[in-house]
Amino acid sequence: MASLLLSARNLEFLLFEWLDVPRLLARERFREHTSDTVRAVLELSEQVATEQFATHNKRNDACEPTFDGTRITVIPEVKAALDVFAATGLVGAAMDADLGGLQLPNTVAQACFAWFQAANVGTAAYAFLTMANANLLAVYGTTEQIEQYVRPMLDGRILGTMCLSEPQAGSSLADVATRAEPDGEGFRLTGNKMWISGGDHELSENIAHLVLARIPGAPVGVKGLSLFLVPKYLPDGTRNDVVVAGLNHKMGFRGTTNAALNFGEGAFTPGGRAGAVGFLVGERNQGLAAMFHMMNEARIGVGLGATALGYTGYLHALDYARSRPQGRPAGSKDPSAPQVPIIAHPDVRRMLLAQKSYVEGALALILYCARLVDEQRTAPSASERDRAERLLSILTPIAKSWPSQWGLAANDLAIQVHGGYGYTREYDVEQFYRDNRLNAIHEGTHGIQALDLLGRKVVLDDGAALRELSSAIEETVEAASAAGGELADLAAALDEAFAEIVAVTARLHSAPPDIALANATVYLEAAGHVVVAWMWLSQLLAADPAGGDFYAGKWQAARYFYRWELPKVRAQVELLASLDVTTLEMAPAWF
Amino acid sequence: MASLLLSARNLEFLLFEWLDVPRLLARERFREHTSDTVRAVLELSEQVATEQFATHNKRNDACEPTFDGTRITVIPEVKAALDVFAATGLVGAAMDADLGGLQLPNTVAQACFAWFQAANVGTAAYAFLTMANANLLAVYGTTEQIEQYVRPMLDGRILGTMCLSEPQAGSSLADVATRAEPDGEGFRLTGNKMWISGGDHELSENIAHLVLARIPGAPVGVKGLSLFLVPKYLPDGTRNDVVVAGLNHKMGFRGTTNAALNFGEGAFTPGGRAGAVGFLVGERNQGLAAMFHMMNEARIGVGLGATALGYTGYLHALDYARSRPQGRPAGSKDPSAPQVPIIAHPDVRRMLLAQKSYVEGALALILYCARLVDEQRTAPSASERDRAERLLSILTPIAKSWPSQWGLAANDLAIQVHGGYGYTREYDVEQFYRDNRLNAIHEGTHGIQALDLLGRKVVLDDGAALRELSSAIEETVEAASAAGGELADLAAALDEAFAEIVAVTARLHSAPPDIALANATVYLEAAGHVVVAWMWLSQLLAADPAGGDFYAGKWQAARYFYRWELPKVRAQVELLASLDVTTLEMAPAWF
Repeated sequence: MASLLLSARNLEFLLFEWLDVPRLLARERFREHTSDTVRAVLELSEQVATEQFATHNKRNDACEPTFDGTRITVIPEVKAALDVFAATGLVGAAMDADLGGLQLPNTVAQACFAWFQAANVGTAAYAFLTMANANLLAVYGTTEQIEQYVRPMLDGRILGTMCLSEPQAGSSLADVATRAEPDGEGFRLTGNKMWISGGDHELSENIAHLVLARIPGAPVGVKGLSLFLVPKYLPDGTRNDVVVAGLNHKMGFRGTTNAALNFGEGAFTPGGRAGAVGFLVGERNQGLAAMFHMMNEARIGVGLGATALGYTGYLHALDYARSRPQGRPAGSKDPSAPQVPIIAHPDVRRMLLAQKSYVEGALALILYCARLVDEQRTAPSASERDRAERLLSILTPIAKSWPSQWGLAANDLAIQVHGGYGYTREYDVEQFYRDNRLNAIHEGTHGIQALDLLGRKVVLDDGAALRELSSAIEETVEAASAAGGELADLAAALDEAFAEIVAVTARLHSAPPDIALANATVYLEAAGHVVVAWMWLSQLLAADPAGGDFYAGKWQAARYFYRWELPKVRAQVELLASLDVTTLEMAPAWF
Repeated sequence: MASLLLSARNLEFLLFEWLDVPRLLARERFREHTSDTVRAVLELSEQVATEQFATHNKRNDACEPTFDGTRITVIPEVKAALDVFAATGLVGAAMDADLGGLQLPNTVAQACFAWFQAANVGTAAYAFLTMANANLLAVYGTTEQIEQYVRPMLDGRILGTMCLSEPQAGSSLADVATRAEPDGEGFRLTGNKMWISGGDHELSENIAHLVLARIPGAPVGVKGLSLFLVPKYLPDGTRNDVVVAGLNHKMGFRGTTNAALNFGEGAFTPGGRAGAVGFLVGERNQGLAAMFHMMNEARIGVGLGATALGYTGYLHALDYARSRPQGRPAGSKDPSAPQVPIIAHPDVRRMLLAQKSYVEGALALILYCARLVDEQRTAPSASERDRAERLLSILTPIAKSWPSQWGLAANDLAIQVHGGYGYTREYDVEQFYRDNRLNAIHEGTHGIQALDLLGRKVVLDDGAALRELSSAIEETVEAASAAGGELADLAAALDEAFAEIVAVTARLHSAPPDIALANATVYLEAAGHVVVAWMWLSQLLAADPAGGDFYAGKWQAARYFYRWELPKVRAQVELLASLDVTTLEMAPAWF
């Protein structure tokens, strides 16, 4: 039976037929790998995700972590799964071999990770936070920090967190108030952190928190933030003063502990003195830049998770639609005829095709971004590496937000395909819907991504990233136009839609900033739809329409996207072009 | 402090300034009531909803009903609240005084009910199912059935259910297989029913199930369905053979038991014989018509519930946005300046204004429909009553589905306004979101409403209902055009959008039926947006733009709807006009 997590066939298409992983494998960094070893690690991922992660996804949801005031209890399946995951070596999937990593292309690593996200986001989150942590330390950490923390992370002995938010500072990192007082070679931290995923548990020997805090005398705002490594247990084995203040009880994503943490409030006094012991990572007052190294990666990771949840929901709905008999075709009213599987109803096929167009479009976008990371790191020329960096910079807010919005929309449709059954916890899709709702919030809300795209990314370097995106889209448009026929028609539609985005970008930036920013979310959504339309056209260039069912499906999903989805952009662009002030002019007292 | 359930000010506007309830009160049927008594019953509703229903809404969710194999346990607050509700007389709010009802206008009754839906859909559902039941029996029941069941329902001693679906027959009632064998003056029923809200509990002395079943020899399909009253306890006090097979465990709406019920499987043998004892309601083989009497009312009730959930979510988000400090205005980057309440951020105001435009638009639609019910029943002339019936017929699928879609969208935005807090069960909005997700499913899914609108309602009587809707909208357009200025501009936009709906309706009906029906959901959504735009314009005709904050808010929400929402219809109409076959041509093997 085909997996209900992801489509291995589609991953094969995306990696080998579309993104040309073999060309990557020819590069020096990846010379230990072949197409065969890549396929083997993908198969291993599917197997471990299926056998170790998917099996306790429902239980993770039903039996969320508990806190008795001292200790957090997580169901034992989580540790068992994470141990197997660590044993596969996948924690260091894309990391350097000399750090203990597998040194796989990032494109391949992300495709592997998708299996785990589709199987169980709650358990997978511990591992993915740890990877992000390890990647940051590998860049910014000292040799000693790498030895003491990164290697054990790759072995699964230490798990990691990122501690940014505080109760009074959610999206506003300028207001982070945690203090770090110099203390010998280290620092002593005091403060409160909020929304810490994986914040505490007994799944690993130690937990390495990466904490944004302020050294006394540092500038106010984000320019005065430094980054610290604060382990739960210090190198000498004593308990550091990081303790759980309480757990947050979420609508979904329940398998991952999410805690408020107190640093240096006196629960423990390591070395007989007050404050949580922390070690500076990177330079003083350069904490935000280091954290954003991790954050950009984490944002694409959120997009991947949202995609994977949308994808597994789609496959569950498809499976249900093929097996559930209900009703008869509109033309055949004979109530004594047998009922047909609901996939025979056009409205059900509409819901399935919409899901397919969202989740396959999102997965293409995420893996395209992953491929850009590989280009950024390993492309032969500096100009290719720079190009990849610019594209990645402008695509990151879209890769974070588009799958979060449309993966959730897919999950909503997956429930609807199931009817009343889909609304019950006896089936799986309602959990995907609840889990996925987090993705538009964490690692920068939808609105924050919009400000990042319109307020920063499209203007940076005098619009260099937007020009790079134009040129990349133009390349696809030209290839599709040259192919003629339906491809040329789709290319024309994409070309026109993207030209409208470019024009409206200029118009918005000619307006007073508050008007532009008041409409940033619509801009993000319109740009996202055009980018995903591009991903669809690009996929078709690798999909022979006469190649069989799989390719026919790609074509029909692309047609759906161009006929049903892309036209929505027009109204958004017109609204943007009108420099609408409706929300700006709404006075708080009028609500 | 203003209520976080609904806006009493807006209800005052809708009932007294917009829908002219005083004109209704002048009619013979309502002569016992005055504007003062109407306001008193609205205030009583707010008070009881606030003090008896809202207080256990979270506990209803956290402590869902349990079934130990014999008995269902519901938290005691539910019965306490329902008893107070019954004591207010509201179960019979709109029913005849000689049946024990308050004989209020339906418009007023629905406004009262909105308070309870906003406070606690789980508990309110028991009461509302009972009202629907009582209303049906009052029309179709025998004098004895009315005495034995309707009066005790109004006193809160009997609660009611409706039993349509079966495990193999969800949306497809033609496949209902429950059998009813004649047995003396009654019938003996055997079969299995699914998704029975309020299916069992110990909240009342008795439960009256209204059950669709088939008498042997009846025609196949829906024409062979009869309706039966099957009480849990028979008139002589013995237990009837209706037992719970199991509970469904839902994502939301957890306060209402939802059960699979077995009829006549031998758990009890009333009178020493097999089968559940049932009493025919109405004529043989006319069960569906009687059930649809209740169903149309229930569908508007679903729309009301979806609206109320959207509304309370909006008010919670508004309250949070006014009190939560976070960040600074875009223009003022000084990180040492104090943080501002998030309502100061334009993107947050956008999310609040969108919610306001959805929930106030939906509430206007529902109360407009409620007013039509009053017209249908009490308008002086037959032509006015017929007009109301035609309008109600075409608006019912929209009144069911539009609030279910956009009330949920409002709840989604309410979570987003709260950021991470909104995703936790420590706050209220995530429950509203989970509760509201049911509304696009029960009492006919979104897709079923679409088929009802495009496949039946707009063609019935050669399009009489659509013509009636045209004339009603035209009336508003003319009044707004005559007023000139901004009203005339909005009128022109509405007129154009509605003309497009009319034109595309004709085009769809000129196409092969399978093409039209494959696109029915888009049609429903486009028509819904235009109807709600009409509701907004109509409200503005009663809203003096210089009347103060409340009216300024009405105007700005209407502007938002016309600038941000109505333009979405264009792409939908163009898709419909293209007679798209993308979903029809998608082969199941291509997924």
